[in-house]
Amino acid sequence: MSIITLTTDYGLKDHFVGALKGKILSQHIDAKIVDISHHVDQFNISEANYIISSAYNSFPKGTVHIIGIDIELTNDNQHIVMQWNDHYFIAADNGILSMLIQKIKPQKIVAINIHDRLLPEATDMDVFVTVAVHIAKGGLLNVIGKEIKSIKEVTELQPVIASDLNSIKGYVVYIDHFGNAVTNISKKMFIDVAKGRPYEVNFKNKKVKSIFAKYSDIETTDKQPLSIISGKALAIFNEAGFLEIGIYKSNPKIGSASSLLGLTYRDFVMINFNS
Amino acid sequence: MSIITLTTDYGLKDHFVGALKGKILSQHIDAKIVDISHHVDQFNISEANYIISSAYNSFPKGTVHIIGIDIELTNDNQHIVMQWNDHYFIAADNGILSMLIQKIKPQKIVAINIHDRLLPEATDMDVFVTVAVHIAKGGLLNVIGKEIKSIKEVTELQPVIASDLNSIKGYVVYIDHFGNAVTNISKKMFIDVAKGRPYEVNFKNKKVKSIFAKYSDIETTDKQPLSIISGKALAIFNEAGFLEIGIYKSNPKIGSASSLLGLTYRDFVMINFNS
Amino acid sequence: MSIITLTTDYGLKDHFVGALKGKILSQHIDAKIVDISHHVDQFNISEANYIISSAYNSFPKGTVHIIGIDIELTNDNQHIVMQWNDHYFIAADNGILSMLIQKIKPQKIVAINIHDRLLPEATDMDVFVTVAVHIAKGGLLNVIGKEIKSIKEVTELQPVIASDLNSIKGYVVYIDHFGNAVTNISKKMFIDVAKGRPYEVNFKNKKVKSIFAKYSDIETTDKQPLSIISGKALAIFNEAGFLEIGIYKSNPKIGSASSLLGLTYRDFVMINFNS
Repeated sequence: MSIITLTTDYGLKDHFVGALKGKILSQHIDAKIVDISHHVDQFNISEANYIISSAYNSFPKGTVHIIGIDIELTNDNQHIVMQWNDHYFIAADNGILSMLIQKIKPQKIVAINIHDRLLPEATDMDVFVTVAVHIAKGGLLNVIGKEIKSIKEVTELQPVIASDLNSIKGYVVYIDHFGNAVTNISKKMFIDVAKGRPYEVNFKNKKVKSIFAKYSDIETTDKQPLSIISGKALAIFNEAGFLEIGIYKSNPKIGSASSLLGLTYRDFVMINFNS
Repeated sequence: MSIITLTTDYGLKDHFVGALKGKILSQHIDAKIVDISHHVDQFNISEANYIISSAYNSFPKGTVHIIGIDIELTNDNQHIVMQWNDHYFIAADNGILSMLIQKIKPQKIVAINIHDRLLPEATDMDVFVTVAVHIAKGGLLNVIGKEIKSIKEVTELQPVIASDLNSIKGYVVYIDHFGNAVTNISKKMFIDVAKGRPYEVNFKNKKVKSIFAKYSDIETTDKQPLSIISGKALAIFNEAGFLEIGIYKSNPKIGSASSLLGLTYRDFVMINFNS
Repeated sequence: MSIITLTTDYGLKDHFVGALKGKILSQHIDAKIVDISHHVDQFNISEANYIISSAYNSFPKGTVHIIGIDIELTNDNQHIVMQWNDHYFIAADNGILSMLIQKIKPQKIVAINIHDRLLPEATDMDVFVTVAVHIAKGGLLNVIGKEIKSIKEVTELQPVIASDLNSIKGYVVYIDHFGNAVTNISKKMFIDVAKGRPYEVNFKNKKVKSIFAKYSDIETTDKQPLSIISGKALAIFNEAGFLEIGIYKSNPKIGSASSLLGLTYRDFVMINFNS
């Protein structure tokens, strides 16, 4: 039995999310539906990109992910299913899967072509639901779409490696609930470029000289009492594998990376390597 | 196995919604519980009316809908179950089912009379939970209530057909997450009154000359490039069957019907027919 | 099959809650997961204390409750499981279970010691998930932890009984969605101290002379028409068994205890007994 996850910009006040679940259960009463987020900013592809690429990994292989952001079907915005790392992503071809395909190549991509088989009043989300249930029940991709070779990538805000390989420039793509500023610099890109060299992470007019592997490493690495470190800016590769600028034990009283450092969406973060 | 849906004004911070689910599962461990909304404005009957009448249709026949808004039991506010279009609605008799019964006649209504059979500390919601589980398990309405012939209707803000049949005056009853202004003029009422005549939809000092059947019709109908239409006011019969004033591809940058046109809750919208 | 409940300060926008559910389902596809709240104020132990102590009672015996607030593992903040009143609570030992253990003694407490058995990249929440699934599947506490005899209690804001037993001073620990001010004075403490004496409840510069057992008692006790009572301050023992200051039928128009009376988090409420 497959899990179907939901990521949308519908919010939770309207009936949309409840209705979406009702439609899935109407076709597949045993579906296991899990909300990832319904609070993606409206039409914000970057946010959805980050959220889905951070969440998928916690689900078992075979999970079907519905991504309901900017899904109005037009010639420019077709409906696709991407099989990737043994997960299935149903989305519009609007760049929303960029972060995933930069990590690993897709196994298969199809352009959904079942629209004519549904009732005339079927909505774009009805198409997604029908496809999700088909896959969750073990159906083949070829039955609901025609194979395509590539999908759109977001070009805005992509991280850039300097031609001399001495720096990486990335961007803040997400501010999380705790005010941490998440960038689009992946741990993999960092390791490939760093090749073991010392480095500095620069953002606003701050710098830090090490990137932690996890929050609890701070204590042992710095050999300072935690009370001194609390409130200090830090860089970390987060659980999703992206460079994140945070404040140790940030909270509404201490402040967060976003409030203390003024880091916001689209700000750049540089990693400079000593050559 | 029946689905039980939840629509309340409890919000999601407090323990109330979690506790409600715990109570249902305590009586019926296999219940499939689906949230419709817990962000209905407090005691706002109009909002709940619209949300439930928009959501029910996505659920299979036999679904049990708990509506937890203004359910304090008093002589004036009794607890009822309405069997309607093969769905079951458990609510207080406070007008919250008006939109439904204006569309289709109820199959059966009972006033719940099990209050004396529960423990003295049972809350109003405990009553609803017991009734919901009873119905979800296939129990009969006569066992938990006494048949009544009618329920209260909200009289405020009802749409009005002019006596010369040349106009319909409706009201904005809901502003959705995307800032669309939803009215209480149903497609059915429109068709009955229009009898094919041309018309104008007037709101604030704007007018539009056609009502779309769905958002994606805009492109083909107007034969204008989408980029020109974007940001334009439009009228549409939404998925729930009600006239909605929106902005094509509204988003926080472009603005929405609510922000651009100034349409708010209780504003009126007129449809004027050419006689 | 056990229920696993979730109480966190993660919010619902980020991927964290979805990922948490994915991790649980990855280990236990049949787990029944119920959200209690993800909107606890960040690092707010008092709020979490109140929410979990109010919610648990609606769930069946054997339910496993994950409490994900301030769970960073340090020497000072170890991970524990408490078996209490036949429920299981997984939390950090940060005082977050104080309200529960003041009511009833725990059956068993263990300090979780499986951290070395997990992968190096395992997060604190991964530890909680593994333990929760272990217990939900019927596993023993001794397998995942070492028995300890006591856990930390929050000392801040505890209710105080005057040495002459003529008053109880408690504090507002939570403002609920309806603006009611919930104190930490329990019904049990009140009954023990009151011994049937008349009393006054004082807060800000208001007083009320009776504490209702439930909201609907107001009508019959006061023998006043409801329309007169509406908007009046009242004291009540809420469903969770704590003294709550509210406004009858409070709503955004009438105002709430929090807005009308100015009661906020940490304010004190006195019960004075006539000796």
